[in-house]
Amino acid sequence: MTRYEHTGSERDLETIDRVREAHVVALNAGDAEAWAGKFTDDGVQMPPHAPANIGRTAIAGWSKGFMGLFSLEFALAVDEVHVQAEWAFERGTYAITLNPKAGGPPMQDAGKYITVYQRQPGASWRMARDIWNSDNPLPGPPAG
Amino acid sequence: MTRYEHTGSERDLETIDRVREAHVVALNAGDAEAWAGKFTDDGVQMPPHAPANIGRTAIAGWSKGFMGLFSLEFALAVDEVHVQAEWAFERGTYAITLNPKAGGPPMQDAGKYITVYQRQPGASWRMARDIWNSDNPLPGPPAG
Repeated sequence: MTRYEHTGSERDLETIDRVREAHVVALNAGDAEAWAGKFTDDGVQMPPHAPANIGRTAIAGWSKGFMGLFSLEFALAVDEVHVQAEWAFERGTYAITLNPKAGGPPMQDAGKYITVYQRQPGASWRMARDIWNSDNPLPGPPAG
Repeated sequence: MTRYEHTGSERDLETIDRVREAHVVALNAGDAEAWAGKFTDDGVQMPPHAPANIGRTAIAGWSKGFMGLFSLEFALAVDEVHVQAEWAFERGTYAITLNPKAGGPPMQDAGKYITVYQRQPGASWRMARDIWNSDNPLPGPPAG
């Protein structure tokens, strides 16, 4: 496997890899609490077309609402991770299929993200900030 | 003025403040080259509803196209800046009015962003990564 571009110790990078993997597993399992649990207490989740969710309680609430509407097939591809003392940032791309629980055709999206991780006591890491957006054009008015 | 939450030396924070101010001035002046000039050579600009622009040439090209369509009224409000050795990250909110050069009513948007800055030789800083998204709901199909 080609490793993403990186700076930082192997130990920190592997710990961040595990946080990311748990994040992906949580989305595919529809587990909003597990998703939110990867964030710091004061984490900020910044979804497109919604206000920022500030703090783990707000993150869990929004995530639960989102996962109530859709079951997800979600994958990330990492371009880079740079670790520096207390903070690390990661850039990459995502692909997601949203299967409406109410029925109807699945929706597909692909885009890009930046996640900032913060070092925690005991050499662990958590997501501290997370923002993403779609590569797909904004839906326009129907063709006339 | 209430200063944003921060870590880092006063010198670094003030230098980053000047980069941000020049970025805002460039957008309001419709100056795509000046906007792109605030990025590192290998900077990554991550606009919503478009693929990432990788490298300053791609950033200048996309920005020129965008500014060819609209004159802009643009402002940022900073929530936090954290400086660590080579990298710094900033989180905040934006407000923008897009005035179509072809005529028609202005469009208003507001949202949030993360900018990663990278330290340059000579104690200067440039934007290295920049991603943002709207707080406004995705336009839906017209009401039936």
